[in-house]
Amino acid sequence: MTRRPNLAVVGATGAVGEVLLGLLSLRQDIWGEVRLVASPRSAGRKLVVRGEPVEVLALDEAAFDGVDVALFDVPDDVSAQWAPIAAAKGVVVVDNSAAFRMDEDVPLVVPEVNAASARLRPRGIVAGPNCATLTMIAAIGALHAEYGLSELVVASYQAASGEGRSGVDALRAQTALVAGTEVGEQTGDLRAVIADNGPFAAPLAFNAVPWTGSLMDGGWSSEELKIRNESRKILGLSALRVSATCVRIPVVRTHALAVHAVFEREVTQEHAQEILRDAPGVVLYDDPAAGEFPTPNDVVGTDPVWVGRVRRALDDPTALDLFLCGDNLRKGAALNALQIAELVAGELSG
Amino acid sequence: MTRRPNLAVVGATGAVGEVLLGLLSLRQDIWGEVRLVASPRSAGRKLVVRGEPVEVLALDEAAFDGVDVALFDVPDDVSAQWAPIAAAKGVVVVDNSAAFRMDEDVPLVVPEVNAASARLRPRGIVAGPNCATLTMIAAIGALHAEYGLSELVVASYQAASGEGRSGVDALRAQTALVAGTEVGEQTGDLRAVIADNGPFAAPLAFNAVPWTGSLMDGGWSSEELKIRNESRKILGLSALRVSATCVRIPVVRTHALAVHAVFEREVTQEHAQEILRDAPGVVLYDDPAAGEFPTPNDVVGTDPVWVGRVRRALDDPTALDLFLCGDNLRKGAALNALQIAELVAGELSG
Repeated sequence: MTRRPNLAVVGATGAVGEVLLGLLSLRQDIWGEVRLVASPRSAGRKLVVRGEPVEVLALDEAAFDGVDVALFDVPDDVSAQWAPIAAAKGVVVVDNSAAFRMDEDVPLVVPEVNAASARLRPRGIVAGPNCATLTMIAAIGALHAEYGLSELVVASYQAASGEGRSGVDALRAQTALVAGTEVGEQTGDLRAVIADNGPFAAPLAFNAVPWTGSLMDGGWSSEELKIRNESRKILGLSALRVSATCVRIPVVRTHALAVHAVFEREVTQEHAQEILRDAPGVVLYDDPAAGEFPTPNDVVGTDPVWVGRVRRALDDPTALDLFLCGDNLRKGAALNALQIAELVAGELSG
Repeated sequence: MTRRPNLAVVGATGAVGEVLLGLLSLRQDIWGEVRLVASPRSAGRKLVVRGEPVEVLALDEAAFDGVDVALFDVPDDVSAQWAPIAAAKGVVVVDNSAAFRMDEDVPLVVPEVNAASARLRPRGIVAGPNCATLTMIAAIGALHAEYGLSELVVASYQAASGEGRSGVDALRAQTALVAGTEVGEQTGDLRAVIADNGPFAAPLAFNAVPWTGSLMDGGWSSEELKIRNESRKILGLSALRVSATCVRIPVVRTHALAVHAVFEREVTQEHAQEILRDAPGVVLYDDPAAGEFPTPNDVVGTDPVWVGRVRRALDDPTALDLFLCGDNLRKGAALNALQIAELVAGELSG
């Protein structure tokens, strides 16, 4: 290909789409046309990309004419329907939904961990993982390369924006309703005062909700199984032991995870810190004596995953305990997808 | 003893003291005099106990004259100084601080788990555990009795009131400052807007702070080591493997924990749920299909520890994943101490 590849952004008007358009202005510009696509009700709106207003097109077959790479950030059912249609027209689809992640003919890619997998895509589709998986996998992948990973125990602290704009709006509205009152100090008073849970399974303001996603066998949530199954696939470890508990907390943006990782070989705190310091896409921020550990708000709007609280388990010389934060809209969605699209574009150009 | 035993509450004016006085009005009244003791600056205040105003006395030796049992909820250094003075006068001290918990001549007691240990107290002191440990130990103890516990991996979601009144005040003030604004959506803007972290290591409103307590060897926090060492002592398992990561979240009251517990024998979800349903001091609230799982606010002001999200690990038939909530001021502090005091009083009377 001698011309620059053309990019379509499908779901351009969503929360992740907004971050994507921002990143397109900030990162090295390798694209020819950038076409914006969304549901028919958003068609006709103009959004700024690379400093220029671009009109949003309605999602239909013609929207993919002349497109080389399409980034999808839309609900699972929309991806399931439209990604194959785009792929049939020769477009390489980078899909952020869960629709194709576990399809054995679709690679699941985190460029820092398994970039080469993106080249083999029998269906013309490359998937990006769930935002919770993305909060840890660059760091865990670097540790795995050195020590050989055997088990992950994960507890999540997930932000409201994981549910998109409606999640942020609900958290803000709930908080405004009860801020300055003593609500939160009596049994169930949040349920009494907050009539609208928004997209959450219980009031989120001044609370923690141990539920994200849908109910699966054995009492697991779909989000918890995604962390297990996607980690296995990305790392190529089909027998990796993974237990995750996913919890939503009253944070606007950036997911955090507490991770207990067990390896095949012995670890040390200092060596693990060295590996993380050198790992691509990872920032080590770990000096509690100086008050240095990542909190979600420190990480909002930044590209990498931040890691702190690195400790060797006291009772297991092969285990590490870590606390990780990653912007769920950026590395957790928009940035990872764009990195994959750039990989594909490089390949098409090269 | 033919008369009713006399009780002193040391630290009567604190956040836990307030809950204690409430519980004394609610629970079966087995006490003769209830004497209130606090720092000299609170002396002379009157607080209502069992429906009657009682004057607060300053902490000195004479405050323990005629007292049979003294409940201490004061800072570690105050307990370290005054508990032995009270004990030397024949008073049985029930201490909620960390000063004596790991002393081998001081039993560490959770009545649902190891009530008998309270009888053997060479120093005249019985300790109650840390509030995070108390959030899980009644439930974990019941599972241990059936399956034999070998490992715990714990991630905490701890409430602001774990830092006492100043923690609650700081969270409310920080939230009021930023509620209704878009703060929380830009890198570090909470640190820019919130000048006063209060007792926390970073802004807590719309954030999560992976630090509680003081820095210990290996990057561990004192709170994380308390969970390990206290669980081992209460359960009598000196080689129990424990890894904990302690995180403060913007909740007013009630701690939550995500726990991955590994046992010596195989478990099933249904049997584990049965054990928890029958365990004293535990409420099983676990039907995600019906939206039933505990959130911190559901549990505020209640006595038991609530357990939900009970799952058998998918990759380890000997492991369970759980989400637990316990009111950190009630079972996590005041209630457990009062239960111990009632045990001791029963023994003195009997």
